[in-house]
Amino acid sequence: MAFLNDNFLKLKAGYLFPEIGRRVKVFCEANPEAAKQLIRCGIGDVTEPLPPAVISAMHKAVDEMASRETFHGYGPEQGYEWLRAAIAKNDFRDRGIEIADDEIFVSDGSKCDCGSILDILGAKNKIAISDPVYPVYVDTNVMAGHTGDANEAGAYGKLIYLPCKPANNFIPEPPKKHVDVIYLCSPNNPTGAAATREQLEAWVKYALENKSVILFDAAYEAYITDENLPHSIYEIPGARECAIEFRSFSKNGGFTGTRCAFTVMPKTLMAQTKSGESKMLHPLWARRQTTKFNGVSYLVQRGAEALYSQEGKSQVRALIEFYLGNAKILRDGAQKVFPKVFGGVNAPYLWVSTQKNVTSWQAFDKMLNEANVVITPGSGFGSRGEGYFRISAFNSRANAGEVARRLLALKW
Amino acid sequence: MAFLNDNFLKLKAGYLFPEIGRRVKVFCEANPEAAKQLIRCGIGDVTEPLPPAVISAMHKAVDEMASRETFHGYGPEQGYEWLRAAIAKNDFRDRGIEIADDEIFVSDGSKCDCGSILDILGAKNKIAISDPVYPVYVDTNVMAGHTGDANEAGAYGKLIYLPCKPANNFIPEPPKKHVDVIYLCSPNNPTGAAATREQLEAWVKYALENKSVILFDAAYEAYITDENLPHSIYEIPGARECAIEFRSFSKNGGFTGTRCAFTVMPKTLMAQTKSGESKMLHPLWARRQTTKFNGVSYLVQRGAEALYSQEGKSQVRALIEFYLGNAKILRDGAQKVFPKVFGGVNAPYLWVSTQKNVTSWQAFDKMLNEANVVITPGSGFGSRGEGYFRISAFNSRANAGEVARRLLALKW
Repeated sequence: MAFLNDNFLKLKAGYLFPEIGRRVKVFCEANPEAAKQLIRCGIGDVTEPLPPAVISAMHKAVDEMASRETFHGYGPEQGYEWLRAAIAKNDFRDRGIEIADDEIFVSDGSKCDCGSILDILGAKNKIAISDPVYPVYVDTNVMAGHTGDANEAGAYGKLIYLPCKPANNFIPEPPKKHVDVIYLCSPNNPTGAAATREQLEAWVKYALENKSVILFDAAYEAYITDENLPHSIYEIPGARECAIEFRSFSKNGGFTGTRCAFTVMPKTLMAQTKSGESKMLHPLWARRQTTKFNGVSYLVQRGAEALYSQEGKSQVRALIEFYLGNAKILRDGAQKVFPKVFGGVNAPYLWVSTQKNVTSWQAFDKMLNEANVVITPGSGFGSRGEGYFRISAFNSRANAGEVARRLLALKW
Repeated sequence: MAFLNDNFLKLKAGYLFPEIGRRVKVFCEANPEAAKQLIRCGIGDVTEPLPPAVISAMHKAVDEMASRETFHGYGPEQGYEWLRAAIAKNDFRDRGIEIADDEIFVSDGSKCDCGSILDILGAKNKIAISDPVYPVYVDTNVMAGHTGDANEAGAYGKLIYLPCKPANNFIPEPPKKHVDVIYLCSPNNPTGAAATREQLEAWVKYALENKSVILFDAAYEAYITDENLPHSIYEIPGARECAIEFRSFSKNGGFTGTRCAFTVMPKTLMAQTKSGESKMLHPLWARRQTTKFNGVSYLVQRGAEALYSQEGKSQVRALIEFYLGNAKILRDGAQKVFPKVFGGVNAPYLWVSTQKNVTSWQAFDKMLNEANVVITPGSGFGSRGEGYFRISAFNSRANAGEVARRLLALKW
């Protein structure tokens, strides 16, 4: 009989968001009236329409597909040159960061890239992951067989968990021991923390000394308001030798349902074979993407390109400011009620400390039942997330204000 | 130092199509005049515009993305229910095949799915692959560590190659020995052969007896003209217990640059754990897709849905007939010149036997240099492809006629 991949059986039954969905469904069925005023601040999904520059570029691209002369069939798997060039220039070279066009690999999502990247890495790497953390980093490693079983707290064997807590501003310090692969996410999902230059410098130093690879998820870089904070790991000297960066158009251009992202793979990044030979990762990633992926829809790439036009840039700026405006309203409200509120300044997420002795899921249930607001329980992101919950600022302005009001009315 | 995946180093340097691209480039630079009349029948990429029904659905979807009330963020990773339902009904249930909506998983390409499916299968499976074959099946298994090294002929250790030849009409017979996973592609890329009901029945019987899983690639099913030939493996009783089917909108709706496909994963398909326990593959695939993929662009899914409207269906039919018309012209021409010509009747590809003692690459070079026509050398698809080349019928009618004329003028 054909064999399945046993590693999947190590995965804990519930991915966080389906469990949230289940509880919300039960609540709504039992409380049809309250369900009408439910406000969802759980999943970090944008709510505002695509920028007009994108809409117009996509209409034009659809028209091109309607005529033989301008039709586009298979494009390059790595993305069209005009999009790779626009990304490398605007997001990197114009900011003084050395990234070549062919170091950009356009994809249909950072979530996909975070999983796919494991294809080119070896099975023997020691892997460090923040706690709390975006669950996809963990689950994809479980699937790939890089972990042991989960313990009762949900922590998997072999993974090295790096605690994120108020004392380190939720950005972990490099560990004392050696690790080969490190996941960092800044601005962070779920904590909303953004790494300082010094914190990233410490990580790059560690990675260069240990010849580790940093997987740097910068999907939320557009939300950085503090001008001293780095937007890219490549702002740190040496990062080209130790880091892969993941970027997305989901949360700046509002592409969560449109699907476009990219990975930066510097040609100066090396890893070793089993026999200790040092080799570039770039050709492996190029081979992976050309063999197992077929490029992003032409229409979508034209839409993404429009984000780099002058109108596109100012429209993205307005979107970011809108969501950060929501974050401020939510933050001001939450601060009056909860012991401590983090994030929401350089990120669209607030990371809220629950009342004493209230667990994350208890807070979730109370918020759902009494305020009819859906949030995300922190413990769903890892054991160090217990005692916190995440509020997403992706919502209408009216809803953000209403959530803030309902928070104030809650009795804990 | 971080480890890379050594299996990538087993891959032969040149994926077929880049090598073709290189030779074409050298030729065009050396012969700028001849380059102007070059006709490409190499890569199987559609040339005709998207059906009007798709264009209109995608314009509408772009407009929806422009307003808050109708905007779409994250969709279900497995595809929107309306698309899954349209697929399951039109492609399966209306043809008397039992497939439920939630057995359909919408994706951005069959190439992606053919690679991704290995994520849920174990490392110890014995894998059978046709020769010649679509190179992605082989290369993704090499990357996943399921093979040994390649020998001089390019065949990888551990893979079980099933010869496809005129004697079996290029559809391999089930092997005498046990295999766990079998790749079948019908109508076939590259040979253009389509499996008969009896041939598929033999495979399903074999798979049920051996508890094997058939990975059935039906990306070209729309090209079947012989009404006795099955369009889906699920037309064969028992296939729900042993087969996964891959379908694509690339070659029927012309979606090669638009990107949409789907995988059929029956809930009745089982595989075993290392300890011999039998489990459904469906939840593993659902977990894989929800964790490592984020769904297809809303715009594209609306475009794909339009292929199932009445206008969409007749527009697709017209596209298929157009390309099959090209195939007939090419076939009539090629038959006057070459020893044997296969395919082109139930598939958009012709599989042409070269003149005696002429290798695939020699035929490629001669066609390029003397006829200024790009074809695909058969040996690029496996050692059993030596002595053949593939002509793609994806072209304009004028080019198809011109290629046929140039074939006639060639002296061998």
